[in-house]
Amino acid sequence: MVDVTASTLQVSTLQVAIEIFATSAFALSGLIAGFRKQLDAFGVFVVTGVAAFGGGTLRDVLLDRRPFFWVDHANWIWLMLGVCMLAMLFMRNKHIQLTERAILIPDALGLGLYAALGTQIALQQQLPVIVCALMGVMTAVFGGVLRDIFCNEIPKAFSDYQPYAVIAFLGGLMVWLLNQLGLASWLCIFIPATLMTILRILAIHFEWRLPHWKIESN
Amino acid sequence: MVDVTASTLQVSTLQVAIEIFATSAFALSGLIAGFRKQLDAFGVFVVTGVAAFGGGTLRDVLLDRRPFFWVDHANWIWLMLGVCMLAMLFMRNKHIQLTERAILIPDALGLGLYAALGTQIALQQQLPVIVCALMGVMTAVFGGVLRDIFCNEIPKAFSDYQPYAVIAFLGGLMVWLLNQLGLASWLCIFIPATLMTILRILAIHFEWRLPHWKIESN
Amino acid sequence: MVDVTASTLQVSTLQVAIEIFATSAFALSGLIAGFRKQLDAFGVFVVTGVAAFGGGTLRDVLLDRRPFFWVDHANWIWLMLGVCMLAMLFMRNKHIQLTERAILIPDALGLGLYAALGTQIALQQQLPVIVCALMGVMTAVFGGVLRDIFCNEIPKAFSDYQPYAVIAFLGGLMVWLLNQLGLASWLCIFIPATLMTILRILAIHFEWRLPHWKIESN
Repeated sequence: MVDVTASTLQVSTLQVAIEIFATSAFALSGLIAGFRKQLDAFGVFVVTGVAAFGGGTLRDVLLDRRPFFWVDHANWIWLMLGVCMLAMLFMRNKHIQLTERAILIPDALGLGLYAALGTQIALQQQLPVIVCALMGVMTAVFGGVLRDIFCNEIPKAFSDYQPYAVIAFLGGLMVWLLNQLGLASWLCIFIPATLMTILRILAIHFEWRLPHWKIESN
Repeated sequence: MVDVTASTLQVSTLQVAIEIFATSAFALSGLIAGFRKQLDAFGVFVVTGVAAFGGGTLRDVLLDRRPFFWVDHANWIWLMLGVCMLAMLFMRNKHIQLTERAILIPDALGLGLYAALGTQIALQQQLPVIVCALMGVMTAVFGGVLRDIFCNEIPKAFSDYQPYAVIAFLGGLMVWLLNQLGLASWLCIFIPATLMTILRILAIHFEWRLPHWKIESN
Repeated sequence: MVDVTASTLQVSTLQVAIEIFATSAFALSGLIAGFRKQLDAFGVFVVTGVAAFGGGTLRDVLLDRRPFFWVDHANWIWLMLGVCMLAMLFMRNKHIQLTERAILIPDALGLGLYAALGTQIALQQQLPVIVCALMGVMTAVFGGVLRDIFCNEIPKAFSDYQPYAVIAFLGGLMVWLLNQLGLASWLCIFIPATLMTILRILAIHFEWRLPHWKIESN
């Protein structure tokens, strides 16, 4: 009994650490999108917040979970507000490319951690395996999707032919498998998250692409 | 008491059969939209899923109902995943027009059945009649609306001047009326659903249009 | 005890009056957007409804509150339906500018009242202050955001550099402050709402703008 509680606490702390780190990378992707679209201070703040918290929030609305991460950790919203205001003052064109390259690795970590965590949360509700995997995908990907919809663009995740959501989906299935095998909760998150992160970095490095439609030119 | 249970079961089975059939037509409309926008595999899957399940899911979020249809029938997600992958491999330009014509009738059936079912579900919650009718409209129409928003287009349902949602709304009012008259639950769904389907097919055949704005050229 | 109940009733009646008045201005902004995009009758109705009720509904979904305003006051949907149909018949280009100027003041009132009310509702759930202020912002601003997304445009609230959401945010903080100071509930709404309305009118009159990004032309 004590063991279970201890491991639950451990996972819970790990969860928070995970969400904080990944959230920063996702938030910066929103900040850049806002900059590119020349949004005003409020627009930048919303798009940054949605990129960071949108996926998990949508998952929690669908799974009927409360409180949201950003309600439980409201200090993060203040921090984000400060970062956005500083960015409005100091960000220049030349910083964009640098930032985009700098967030590639944290974003890959975010992909792995969000997807694994989202799947695990859904598994705790005893939902069917594909629903759990999709909740993982949603957690990892839909912040970016909402960011792009708010910027009036086709979501990058739907149209760039990069294996991003697909990695999240496969990782989610792996989370399920490890749970079936009876592994400890934190291992069920840690192993797939690591593999997804590696896979994502490989996908960027080798420029892997999803298969294209077979369109004849007639 | 036994009668009530039997009729409840009957309606419940009918509900499932209804949702399965209509869902296929709606899913194909999403698949075509994804093809047209040249979305990647993930994009096609999401847009197909949203076209199929988005309306009912949004209704259930608003009515605070769980589980969603696609959680209760998760096998359908696997099937959809398979269909999307096959479509990516085998779909060609020439198939589009054929598919679009082939789904006109199932889509009309979907309109009738979704709208009637959505209204009936809201009526069970004792909501005001116009809210119930709008829940029917939402069930039938908002999958397509979300599909178009995800594809970064003005929703067809808002801008094609075809009597689609209007038919759903009138049908929803009829569902309410039949409930008031004390008809059996399945008749309250079946009769308006049939009439809406016929009306929709007539609207396509005779190219009925909603009234346009009176815009003077000044 | 009696006092508390009486003041609760008072606030509750005030709440309804507030929501009704502001809702009309927001609804008209949706009607105009629908006209501009030449949407059909259903599109106009949805965009009008979303502009009027979207912000509060999104807040209630996130806060898990039911019933929605438009479920409790379903007569307003009938009225809106009637207004939309009349507008389709009688609205002309020349009416647009007139309407837009006419709704500036009610819209400023709506901003103040919605933001104050939304914040107060969130405070009743004992949420962190920034979350409460953001719920106020959402109530006041996200109807317009959803309206613009449905019209396939970048939300005006994100990109027009006007201090609109920013005023709502500051007003929300003030609602929290007044609650901390122990003022009566209706004063916590009334004072900030009035100040926000005045501030918004000043902002329009003096054409205040939010700071722009520092973009060099390189």
